Amino acid sequence: MSSGSLRSRPSALRGSRRSRCPVACTLDVLGDKWTLLVVRDIMRGKSRYAEFLASPEGIPTNILADRLKRLTAKGIVKARRYSLHPPRVDYALTAKGEDLRPVMRAMAEWGVRHAGGRMPPPVPITTA
Amino acid sequence: MSSGSLRSRPSALRGSRRSRCPVACTLDVLGDKWTLLVVRDIMRGKSRYAEFLASPEGIPTNILADRLKRLTAKGIVKARRYSLHPPRVDYALTAKGEDLRPVMRAMAEWGVRHAGGRMPPPVPITTA
Repeated sequence: MSSGSLRSRPSALRGSRRSRCPVACTLDVLGDKWTLLVVRDIMRGKSRYAEFLASPEGIPTNILADRLKRLTAKGIVKARRYSLHPPRVDYALTAKGEDLRPVMRAMAEWGVRHAGGRMPPPVPITTA
Repeated sequence: MSSGSLRSRPSALRGSRRSRCPVACTLDVLGDKWTLLVVRDIMRGKSRYAEFLASPEGIPTNILADRLKRLTAKGIVKARRYSLHPPRVDYALTAKGEDLRPVMRAMAEWGVRHAGGRMPPPVPITTA
């Protein structure tokens, strides 16, 4: 009976049933593939819109704009203005975003072992 | 010009441009929230359809069926027949699926620190 009512529950209601599971909480924030690929790009030294667009996965522009907005709203990424005329921003990780490195590392290691991934060359050290 | 052509590329073509980035490769397999929540459930001792449905996130039945099929096809989960009449299967992780534990652990730790997650009590040790 309870699984029957669960099946018929409308999705709006389903969404309101918040889980305290820390994995589910993380997935509520990161959720989809594109979000994590933008975070990965920033971890690997990219900071500008055109650089994210140029990544090999080919993120669509509307999705990129949406994910940057959401990542900024969630405090994972911060926008920094680097030009006033014309107005331009780039993006960096906050401390909360930097704390995603172990997640990214674990995913990369699994990808190498099991999903045909190849580790990229190390990011060159630059002085900002 | 190159970013212009990237923008206008149709999504079918975009999808065919495979990245060798190990994070992207992992996300191609795990991709969405529901897939990882099913893996989490199995890691925490669940094995049956009805148990996955009963998880607090309220996975819809059609999504659950699809994700179990995909996880099995990808060799992350294996189905085991535990009853012939009526025919019933349950699910367990393969070695490839077990290797996702560091990903899950890193996500759980981030969820506790930054997304309002609470660690569940440890899974009791059972002898199979």
